[in-house]
Amino acid sequence: MANAQTVAMQAIEAVNGTITTPKGFKSDGIHTKVKRKRNDLGVIYCDQPVAAAAVYTLNQIQAAPIAVTKEAIQTNGKIQAVVVNSGHANACTGKQGLTDAYEVQEKVAKTFVIQPEDIAVASTGLIGERMKMEKIIPGIEKLEPVATNQGAEQFAQAILTTDTFTKSACVQTMIDGEVVTVAGVAKGSGMIHPNMATMLGFMTTDANISHEALQRVLSNVTDQTYNRITVDGDTSTNDMVLALASAEVDHAELSETHPEWLQFVSAMQAVSESLSKQIARDGEGATKLIEVQVSGAPTDADAGKIAKQIVGSDLVKTAIYGTDANWGRIICAIGYAGVTIDPDTIDIAIGSYDTLLNSEPVMFSEEEVLAYLKGEEITIHVHLHVGEGVGKAWGCDLTYDYVRINAGYRT
Amino acid sequence: MANAQTVAMQAIEAVNGTITTPKGFKSDGIHTKVKRKRNDLGVIYCDQPVAAAAVYTLNQIQAAPIAVTKEAIQTNGKIQAVVVNSGHANACTGKQGLTDAYEVQEKVAKTFVIQPEDIAVASTGLIGERMKMEKIIPGIEKLEPVATNQGAEQFAQAILTTDTFTKSACVQTMIDGEVVTVAGVAKGSGMIHPNMATMLGFMTTDANISHEALQRVLSNVTDQTYNRITVDGDTSTNDMVLALASAEVDHAELSETHPEWLQFVSAMQAVSESLSKQIARDGEGATKLIEVQVSGAPTDADAGKIAKQIVGSDLVKTAIYGTDANWGRIICAIGYAGVTIDPDTIDIAIGSYDTLLNSEPVMFSEEEVLAYLKGEEITIHVHLHVGEGVGKAWGCDLTYDYVRINAGYRT
Repeated sequence: MANAQTVAMQAIEAVNGTITTPKGFKSDGIHTKVKRKRNDLGVIYCDQPVAAAAVYTLNQIQAAPIAVTKEAIQTNGKIQAVVVNSGHANACTGKQGLTDAYEVQEKVAKTFVIQPEDIAVASTGLIGERMKMEKIIPGIEKLEPVATNQGAEQFAQAILTTDTFTKSACVQTMIDGEVVTVAGVAKGSGMIHPNMATMLGFMTTDANISHEALQRVLSNVTDQTYNRITVDGDTSTNDMVLALASAEVDHAELSETHPEWLQFVSAMQAVSESLSKQIARDGEGATKLIEVQVSGAPTDADAGKIAKQIVGSDLVKTAIYGTDANWGRIICAIGYAGVTIDPDTIDIAIGSYDTLLNSEPVMFSEEEVLAYLKGEEITIHVHLHVGEGVGKAWGCDLTYDYVRINAGYRT
Repeated sequence: MANAQTVAMQAIEAVNGTITTPKGFKSDGIHTKVKRKRNDLGVIYCDQPVAAAAVYTLNQIQAAPIAVTKEAIQTNGKIQAVVVNSGHANACTGKQGLTDAYEVQEKVAKTFVIQPEDIAVASTGLIGERMKMEKIIPGIEKLEPVATNQGAEQFAQAILTTDTFTKSACVQTMIDGEVVTVAGVAKGSGMIHPNMATMLGFMTTDANISHEALQRVLSNVTDQTYNRITVDGDTSTNDMVLALASAEVDHAELSETHPEWLQFVSAMQAVSESLSKQIARDGEGATKLIEVQVSGAPTDADAGKIAKQIVGSDLVKTAIYGTDANWGRIICAIGYAGVTIDPDTIDIAIGSYDTLLNSEPVMFSEEEVLAYLKGEEITIHVHLHVGEGVGKAWGCDLTYDYVRINAGYRT
């Protein structure tokens, strides 16, 4: 499987595109003055309903838009428009919140003259306050989706909260000799953890694939990418990743029996991994992206679990911020990840510098490692020598700015 | 059970005592210059071997002293001396670390002319560096345990690392008409989480109780107290709580059939809860003690789990630091604690101020809540209205100083 993926990945080409690069998608974003300056309302629009798939937060407290979007996708597996507002999460807003989410859906339906059940809605921002409907509803009429990179950039800006930059990725691959494009846009900064934490992701592709097959790809890929990032371990009420496939490219419908199925999976994986890393890098207050690679675990899932435990440890995160090669905190996190390991066969390297081999400390040049830790991308390698499982996770350092941002977010 | 405890608790009297207040215990602490200024080596000593019980870290990576102490207690359930060094954890030090721990045990045996298998050892401090044996071994000869509060205070100082104050508690109760004393001393600041995270606790009592019964009490009480504190969610390699019972008070041996059994359990619980709160209050960089009380959960264990998830959330911790009544982050933590709840029946109060009732936001005076949040002890009340389970957990706010302390600990 690892080999198959490697071969397939060679045929995936990153291109300078956006969610409107795949054929069949338009988008826009505008400023309705819910937020002070930045865009706060956006739409992705297709000329007809297209195959849709989604994954949602596993938090038991789920925002109203999650319920409305789930319902829309369940109707017939198709979506024609996605409307997103930022500033308010429409979570913990009771029955009024649900009414508001439906009203947004209705308004989009009337404005674009499409069916309400083909409309997904998403919200992000403060929990527990009602959305400013008096700004959002008139705002919807002003949305003018276009199939340009500029429309996509307006959308990318409209979904941000504490993010400091927009996040997007686009790749192309060949299916049945035709160019297929997969693109994505995401937001997410704090409260990022497993299971979709205050992160929103929207993926578009012009591939020909059913709702069901797209759902299988998305669910799989999410486990390896979006669910492997952590900023502060909190899991939000609003998160979702939504994928839309327009089928505008003329190739045989994709499913597991298609010879180039893995090609498409790899393209989805590449976009998702790129977005995940961008989100981790933009963690609240972060100065460094941390990637943890675990191998030799009992299973791939175990490797991912340990990688995530390490990258989620406040002590590891502060050590990396302090450019401190403190492998003791790394081994400590390995020990409480809930995976059975052999405490005597652990290797830990920071970048290319071995710090622990066979669970015994190794002499290393503090100076060289310090120089490495001053960089903006830190990789931690762990080998457990227990099995064949491999997995990665991404996060960021824990800084003074994280505390500053989160001690004052609501006020 | 709750009522039984309440009744019993009324007979537990907090007294101004130390671990040498229970009859039969002496202690000392000295400065061997492993640490720059503070004491770094301490001992608790009994005139003969006494009943002992212990709980240990659940981290799979366990420091050498854990192995040596486990072995000592397993021999015959008795301990005569406990020696503790701070500065180095003797964790991840390979075979050399185990040899060193045994050498410390041997040296104590020779110095005090007692059996090595009656000696417990504990270490706390930096992981991965060998202990400075050239300072510790000669230091052991200089220990002069005495049965005074001053001896206890020297010990309390000797076990600290990043702690800013010593932690102790002492209570008395009546068993068979005789005064029984239970006392404890602890250290712990960062890396405090479930399962004994870089925390050391030592409890002494002059009660008459077997090794086995003492172990049952300690394990139970630990679940409700030491395992309910979290500073940063990390679980350390070295943690243990050790209880010693000298049987110097003349009463019928305690076990579940003794009519005043709950009296003794409550005394152990009171000392453990007091130490736990002191540890949480002294969390690295903390300015506030946070107590979370959950009721209406399916079970007591579920309530404890949710309480701990809330008090462990970086977002809740930074909000409290920022005196922000952000109940959205609290409900969010409830939703991902892994306990089945009803999302529509949640009450949340901050201090005595209701912020959410039946999962709907409640108007509250921001000013009054702000004034409350400026205090040094914050209580969060959650009622789930699902079952009868109740539980508490303790933690602290997440501050700039936490980042400062942990970004520079090793250097």
